[in-house]
Amino acid sequence: MEKVEESASNVEEEVGEVLEQARELQESGASLLWRLSNEEQSLCQRANSLESSTRRLRSLITSLLSQKLLDPKLADKLEEDLERARCFVTDGDAVAFLPAKYQGKFLKAFLGPINVRASRKDVQLKVKEEYNSYRDRTAFLFLLFPLTLLILRSWIWKGCLPAFPVQLYQAWLLFLYTGLALRENILWSNGSDIRPWWIYHHYCAMAMALVSITWEVKGQPNCTQKQRGVELFLQWAMMQDVAMLLQNRYQRQRLYTRIALGKAKRMDVVWGETAGVDGQLWVLCPIRFLMQGFEAYVGVLLLKTAFFWVVPEWQIIFCGILLVVMAVGNFINTVQTLVAKSRFKEKMKKTKGKQEL
Amino acid sequence: MEKVEESASNVEEEVGEVLEQARELQESGASLLWRLSNEEQSLCQRANSLESSTRRLRSLITSLLSQKLLDPKLADKLEEDLERARCFVTDGDAVAFLPAKYQGKFLKAFLGPINVRASRKDVQLKVKEEYNSYRDRTAFLFLLFPLTLLILRSWIWKGCLPAFPVQLYQAWLLFLYTGLALRENILWSNGSDIRPWWIYHHYCAMAMALVSITWEVKGQPNCTQKQRGVELFLQWAMMQDVAMLLQNRYQRQRLYTRIALGKAKRMDVVWGETAGVDGQLWVLCPIRFLMQGFEAYVGVLLLKTAFFWVVPEWQIIFCGILLVVMAVGNFINTVQTLVAKSRFKEKMKKTKGKQEL
Repeated sequence: MEKVEESASNVEEEVGEVLEQARELQESGASLLWRLSNEEQSLCQRANSLESSTRRLRSLITSLLSQKLLDPKLADKLEEDLERARCFVTDGDAVAFLPAKYQGKFLKAFLGPINVRASRKDVQLKVKEEYNSYRDRTAFLFLLFPLTLLILRSWIWKGCLPAFPVQLYQAWLLFLYTGLALRENILWSNGSDIRPWWIYHHYCAMAMALVSITWEVKGQPNCTQKQRGVELFLQWAMMQDVAMLLQNRYQRQRLYTRIALGKAKRMDVVWGETAGVDGQLWVLCPIRFLMQGFEAYVGVLLLKTAFFWVVPEWQIIFCGILLVVMAVGNFINTVQTLVAKSRFKEKMKKTKGKQEL
Repeated sequence: MEKVEESASNVEEEVGEVLEQARELQESGASLLWRLSNEEQSLCQRANSLESSTRRLRSLITSLLSQKLLDPKLADKLEEDLERARCFVTDGDAVAFLPAKYQGKFLKAFLGPINVRASRKDVQLKVKEEYNSYRDRTAFLFLLFPLTLLILRSWIWKGCLPAFPVQLYQAWLLFLYTGLALRENILWSNGSDIRPWWIYHHYCAMAMALVSITWEVKGQPNCTQKQRGVELFLQWAMMQDVAMLLQNRYQRQRLYTRIALGKAKRMDVVWGETAGVDGQLWVLCPIRFLMQGFEAYVGVLLLKTAFFWVVPEWQIIFCGILLVVMAVGNFINTVQTLVAKSRFKEKMKKTKGKQEL
């Protein structure tokens, strides 16, 4: 009987201890969060004031330069210093305390107003690494899927694609592009300087995949003629993919080099399109332009077939217009990147020249 | 000349200051993150050890009880204390330092390995509030969309739905269910005890919406007969929605009452299905069962039409099976919730009875 009472009182004591520990844990948690939010606020204020003084000094330097009140060499040096100050903040751990970038409507529509910003730089980088490897992994499927369809078409289906596999492919594309658009929006709010066009481009691709699912794949008679659009689309998807794979590979190498040189923020996405090594640039650029030309060609061809049919299907017209829009947008953005790049180079040369003087 | 040099040297000085401030900011940020991660780790360890001792004590109490070595009244009191200890941790700010709940594959497929867990309880609650209001907002559209389709069908389209508006509706459903599934997964990782079935239910609904998009809506002749499935689906969607609206309203009230009484964690979702007030329960339950019956009926009807046609469309068979599965799953889950609820009540009554003694 004594032992029983002992164990019962022991249990009671231990439960009391657990309750006390839980209370303490809750208090420590609350106090940590309170201190954290105070410190965060003060860091956020400092970051804000730093940003505004950088802005003010930049415009001051420009105005002094234009009035010839400042030595151009000194101005260049000062601007470099300001840039270094910016990099200290945006590349370091302090970035978590900068006021958050505006989170797009796209993320909000799918996820609600949740914070997708990682507070630590290493987590942000992990997100980016994962995005790149996701692109690599899917690029493989991206090639395999249309290739299988085209092979089976000429081998088993005798030139006439059945509807189901094509729709399955389009549904996969829809999922893939939604995932990419979500991830890119997350990268964007984590401070990556991905060009907004590439995100819009994925919205267009999502719309096209969705519309293509409703696109009735016509069978016999005249299968080859009726499925010309689908065939072209599949071929274009494959070419696109090879270009993407090449680009991914070279640009990742390039990114690591640039990170090592401290030129690029690590959150820059591989997808700089034309940010490759110079030698590779002359390989990638023609491929890019060729792809864009082919994209526009497929679009125009779809529009042509749609208007020559007795009953034009709206899906074909829609996809045709979308392809042309995407091709034009891609072209403009590639050219803009090239121009920005050459300007940057010229500036670098100038600075170097001056330094050598 | 003097003034020029002065302003130039001033600028130089200020730039130097900015650079220094940036460096300091970066250092403070890094140090804060470092301290934070240390404190987090220690809190996490404490939370873990607390959890394991709670588990140990629980099983100890059960074994002591079965050996009659512990007074049942005392055991009840101790178990209540342990429950209170758990609530201290999970309902308070310390929850941010508990080991993260496993983030599902669904979130990972769409977003990558990003942390969607809010560190502060108030942010978590905001996420939940937004989820509930999102459900309210969409419930309105959920009613309006099929209603408009059905009205236009008998008014303008003369009993024969055109394909485009129906596909638009299905595309909207696909978007809606994807958003809901993503938000529910986020809620889940934020510690809500939403029943997993309701998330699976939304995966099924996503699959159905996607398949329905490819479903060729048949036109003349015999439009009414061919579109019987679509018509039933629209009617079911409307009824479903009215039930959902009623439920949302009552359960939110109920949730607030329960929060006030300290019985529910605030992360509990309104979607408790049968967690309503008793009086409402007797209204909601029959409606739920009616909806589930109608859902199964539509499913069976779709299967029947599919098998009586000359060429059965796989989409109709797929949707039919899915509807039946969803109806059965809903039924099982509603019954389980009811059983859990009545058990909980019995226990409460017993405890009360004992306390009165």
